[in-house]
Amino acid sequence: MSTELTLYGYWRSSAAYRVRIALNLKGLAYRQVPVHLVKDGGQQRAADYRALNPQQLVPLLVDEANGGARISQSLAILEYLDEVFPVPALLPADPVERAQVRSQAMHIACEIHPLNNLRVLQYLSAELGVDDEAKNAWYRHWVAQGLAAVEQGLETFGDKRSLTNRPGYLEACLVPQVYNARRFACDLAAYPRILEIVARCETLPAFQQAAPEVQPDAQ
Amino acid sequence: MSTELTLYGYWRSSAAYRVRIALNLKGLAYRQVPVHLVKDGGQQRAADYRALNPQQLVPLLVDEANGGARISQSLAILEYLDEVFPVPALLPADPVERAQVRSQAMHIACEIHPLNNLRVLQYLSAELGVDDEAKNAWYRHWVAQGLAAVEQGLETFGDKRSLTNRPGYLEACLVPQVYNARRFACDLAAYPRILEIVARCETLPAFQQAAPEVQPDAQ
Repeated sequence: MSTELTLYGYWRSSAAYRVRIALNLKGLAYRQVPVHLVKDGGQQRAADYRALNPQQLVPLLVDEANGGARISQSLAILEYLDEVFPVPALLPADPVERAQVRSQAMHIACEIHPLNNLRVLQYLSAELGVDDEAKNAWYRHWVAQGLAAVEQGLETFGDKRSLTNRPGYLEACLVPQVYNARRFACDLAAYPRILEIVARCETLPAFQQAAPEVQPDAQ
Repeated sequence: MSTELTLYGYWRSSAAYRVRIALNLKGLAYRQVPVHLVKDGGQQRAADYRALNPQQLVPLLVDEANGGARISQSLAILEYLDEVFPVPALLPADPVERAQVRSQAMHIACEIHPLNNLRVLQYLSAELGVDDEAKNAWYRHWVAQGLAAVEQGLETFGDKRSLTNRPGYLEACLVPQVYNARRFACDLAAYPRILEIVARCETLPAFQQAAPEVQPDAQ
């Protein structure tokens, strides 16, 4: 098993944060290369990075041990890690449990995060002239809608399916999303199941060492 | 192998369209239950549907043969189908190829579609007072950004990795996205690789029979 892994990321990118958690949960060593999403008009748009990752987003994982494979999209990276470094697993073994975990994680990755990431907030301000108050309301609206659905999903599927017996795929998405929500002062009182999971994760080194503030490029 | 599958969807939902394609590619029979996303204030928000799917979105797949498992999020459904009904596969066998396919598909599912779906367009109009012209510009902006990245990804990774030897996971996302882009009159001339893949898919019954216009609830 190789650990010749390089992660291109940004300390505050919640998609990169997901991958850091997953790498740590698997105990994989990795080199970090910071890509500053604001400086120089966004270093993810620079020609050298674009040549590596045409999607012009972080994270990007490069696996030298596998022909220098370059993999973008955080959930594609999580799936790759679970296939190439299967122990400990991020996903449960049973297909229905796997599906429930993926469904909850994808609710975060497809229904909350894309609406609230930096380039979208920039478009709201610059192109649509949305003021800060309305932009914050937008942010909180999608967090509230999305986390309510996840909370309800945990209630509906969690008990039977032991969705969260061991932190993995779902928690790697949930913890960064809650981090973001707190940053924007979202009220999280209505999501006790989510808060309990996050509190438990925050006691674990894999999560602590993935936190934005302790990354080499944190400001 | 059972085909006791029910798909809750909506003819024009591109996420449901993805699942119809996947089911057809696998030759799986399924029952359809329409959930009208506009009528009655959105039937996906009705109590009976919410009890089935707390995410209040389509699609939802119910698999009676697997304990009545209820799976939401289109890509979680595609993964589930590939695990439970493995032949023919939607994903390639090699981990790096799988990762490239997932990365491209997730670029559509996480970077384009979430910004352009109905509830977001409704929020732009109702909450932010965005007029139709600016809303269409928003729509086309994210399509153009996203499809350019996918086109570039096909160029970068496609040849070596035979990303599109056989239609599957990626095409199930690409064809509905291009359908949407055409609906909103987006200019697609800059994406010849995408157009070639879509044209090839459109000759196949699995795609033809999944098209919005031929669904039972099409209007």
